[in-house]
Amino acid sequence: MVDKKLSGAGLRGQSAGETALCTVGKSGSGLTYCGYDVSDLADNATFEEVAYLLFNGELPTQTQLSTYKSELAAMRDLPQALKEVLQRIPASAHPMDVMRTGASFLGNLEPEENFDQQHQAANRLLAAFPAIMTYWYRYSHDKVEINCITDEDSTGGHFLKLLTGNTPSELHRRVMDVSLILYAEHEFNASTFTARVCASTLSDMFSCVTAAIGSLRGPLHGGANEAAMDMIQTFKSPEDAKVQMAGMLERKEKIMGFGHAVYSTSDPRNVIIKKWSEKLSQEFGDSALYDISVACEEFMWDTKKLFCNADFFHASAYHFMGIPTKLFTPIFVCSRLTGWAAHVMEQRSNNRIIRPSADYIGAEPRAVKPIDQR
Amino acid sequence: MVDKKLSGAGLRGQSAGETALCTVGKSGSGLTYCGYDVSDLADNATFEEVAYLLFNGELPTQTQLSTYKSELAAMRDLPQALKEVLQRIPASAHPMDVMRTGASFLGNLEPEENFDQQHQAANRLLAAFPAIMTYWYRYSHDKVEINCITDEDSTGGHFLKLLTGNTPSELHRRVMDVSLILYAEHEFNASTFTARVCASTLSDMFSCVTAAIGSLRGPLHGGANEAAMDMIQTFKSPEDAKVQMAGMLERKEKIMGFGHAVYSTSDPRNVIIKKWSEKLSQEFGDSALYDISVACEEFMWDTKKLFCNADFFHASAYHFMGIPTKLFTPIFVCSRLTGWAAHVMEQRSNNRIIRPSADYIGAEPRAVKPIDQR
Repeated sequence: MVDKKLSGAGLRGQSAGETALCTVGKSGSGLTYCGYDVSDLADNATFEEVAYLLFNGELPTQTQLSTYKSELAAMRDLPQALKEVLQRIPASAHPMDVMRTGASFLGNLEPEENFDQQHQAANRLLAAFPAIMTYWYRYSHDKVEINCITDEDSTGGHFLKLLTGNTPSELHRRVMDVSLILYAEHEFNASTFTARVCASTLSDMFSCVTAAIGSLRGPLHGGANEAAMDMIQTFKSPEDAKVQMAGMLERKEKIMGFGHAVYSTSDPRNVIIKKWSEKLSQEFGDSALYDISVACEEFMWDTKKLFCNADFFHASAYHFMGIPTKLFTPIFVCSRLTGWAAHVMEQRSNNRIIRPSADYIGAEPRAVKPIDQR
Repeated sequence: MVDKKLSGAGLRGQSAGETALCTVGKSGSGLTYCGYDVSDLADNATFEEVAYLLFNGELPTQTQLSTYKSELAAMRDLPQALKEVLQRIPASAHPMDVMRTGASFLGNLEPEENFDQQHQAANRLLAAFPAIMTYWYRYSHDKVEINCITDEDSTGGHFLKLLTGNTPSELHRRVMDVSLILYAEHEFNASTFTARVCASTLSDMFSCVTAAIGSLRGPLHGGANEAAMDMIQTFKSPEDAKVQMAGMLERKEKIMGFGHAVYSTSDPRNVIIKKWSEKLSQEFGDSALYDISVACEEFMWDTKKLFCNADFFHASAYHFMGIPTKLFTPIFVCSRLTGWAAHVMEQRSNNRIIRPSADYIGAEPRAVKPIDQR
């Protein structure tokens, strides 16, 4: 067996397989799902249409979409045993540990017995994740046992109603929908690649998704919008933002929400979520956080030629909708699940176990010494 | 960014990084941990010494080993909340789903707050896994709430006592020890690579191990010893085994426990576990299953030039010790955890996020049609 040296660490620039699901930085605005530009989808489709697209390769007809949404709506409630597990997770837990555990536990109760059930398993997770997140959050933080069923038509509206108990505005529903579309899929990013490695052993959907959540939890992957939120909340004004950020750059502190591993001049998702953040700020009646965010964007471009990625204006947008910062990355899970599951299905359709080699840099062959001679 | 074409699917023969932990198929008997031949370790060390070696790079002195084993022994019990979660998993669940969920849930209660705690987190999982497996098994199958603490000195003995309630024989303790050594580490196999991809986002130890369990669950990775057991139990005699296997080959049925993705002429672990299986068969007083296993080995070599891998004689060995077949792969978890955790630590020590590219084979750019025109 010949080991080939990588072009770079982390398999950067190295193809690890084929996909029909996504292009990043190739054409149009730079991000396509199954050939559709993400900005076209964000303007002209809903999240459930995008989920259907990723799972089936084509956008649904009206009849297909109605059937699909009814199926999802019927799968929203959580089994009693899962609620009892979530009750046992303290408020201090990392919300991504909750999502990982919720997905894993559900796999015990409703296992994917064979790959004919892969759509069922993916849809079940898609329908259940908003309740997994909010049931734990409301129980551990507010001592409230929420009802996990709502009459909201969309995944985004369902999540907002579970979280607040109130019927969301049309604007909030639409922004959640757009946000879930923007985060749905991004080719062989680390969490999706984790899901594909897991899938390549022919493991089940719940294992693959659980594994992917573990990777998205890492601060180099998910969590940038939370970090951006933590930062902009400390700025008192647009002017203060620029002063503070200059200090951060001088101290070489990491500033989250800017730049991207694949994009070099802009992130196509930024202009979309920025527009919605502005609308939300107007409805909110206090645009300070939006104005501060714009000042940050200007400052980073002027001084470092760094652009906002998808995460930066998500921070203010989520905040305007009253979403606690610690739930930002779990929302990412609710969305990216669609990409993960689609990649699991694709890996299964043309599988070889993913088992690379390694370059050995360790000790030379040696003999075990008796313990009293070490 | 230039995409380089792979030499083969599944990153086969492709280096995905460096390691000082293991060589496979390179020198000596073909498998070394930190420079030590696995057969040398199996003959002259214990599993706890191997765990210490993988986590620290050197075998322990007597003092270090005693301290380490005391630490592990003090971490064996499970939190009450975890026991209550395990009580809610039905007997019909896949035992690997139980292990995955147990690891994930523990991460909520005792999170790895920062990487200074990585040894603590790895050792906690190492100490707790035997109880996670057996607490669930005995509760769901026998309605018994076991005490998760034993006075057994070794991990292997502790597991056997938890499972049976009886003090294991010296022979059984030693075979469990050897088995845990043989399964501890195997370079960039799919589950270990899963753990490293997860670790590369700087996620926590519990996420990485949970993800790896999900990959080991797949039938192309773990589970071969269970499949071998299921097969040899259907054979009535050595002669019957050869007749039945000939039929399986003719019907092109997959026969598990033979051959290996990396080894081409023999698996260095087979000769070791085979010897112990023979000893166990003598103690057991009925060598039929061992004799059948030997007949299988002869038949596969004579007809297909395929050799037994580490899994094949593990089936009879575990069976002679009274271990239920469905717990074979969870035992693999108890052992391989050491390799996974060591690779997580190594990835962290020289990290770049693992984010490969993909070759796009999907739809050309297209526009979203209004839903009533689809």
